[in-house]
Amino acid sequence: MIKHIVLLTWQEGVSQAQIDAVTSAFQELGKEIPEVLNYSFGQDAGIYRGNANYALIAEFRNEADLKAYVVHPSHQALLSTVTGPILKSFQSIQIKV
Amino acid sequence: MIKHIVLLTWQEGVSQAQIDAVTSAFQELGKEIPEVLNYSFGQDAGIYRGNANYALIAEFRNEADLKAYVVHPSHQALLSTVTGPILKSFQSIQIKV
Repeated sequence: MIKHIVLLTWQEGVSQAQIDAVTSAFQELGKEIPEVLNYSFGQDAGIYRGNANYALIAEFRNEADLKAYVVHPSHQALLSTVTGPILKSFQSIQIKV
Repeated sequence: MIKHIVLLTWQEGVSQAQIDAVTSAFQELGKEIPEVLNYSFGQDAGIYRGNANYALIAEFRNEADLKAYVVHPSHQALLSTVTGPILKSFQSIQIKV
């Protein structure tokens, strides 16, 4: 299995409503793309300082399913319209487990 | 439940043997600290460019268990002696799921 992990850092001044819109969009996307086996996401819990602001973990059977997700039009639309406009930086990784 | 996620980027010139030593150390640590419910870790699969080099996901029942893990002497020893010497940068987050 492949775990696809993304940590997101928002621009200054992003509102809770904008973050909630990210969460809603991921909830919909996880239901829409059948290749996603498990989908976990959420904002930083506020326990430690210096953290990223938001994380997403998506699990896939294999590399082909991961790539189908990445290029899926609904995923690309989310990146363009929901996370993209409020994003300062992000870091990704895929690990085989 | 809390997911604790860390993405690590290594210094230039880190060897596969050093990365394998990280994996071995995390395998032992996951067995040693009872607060860890699930522990997933591994190096980047090499599918996309620009990624972090290594990821760890640890799951805990609650914030108290997370904090017990963070300050555990064996965890601190791993940071000092295994990951610390080869680390360029890292980014963390905790999300409630």
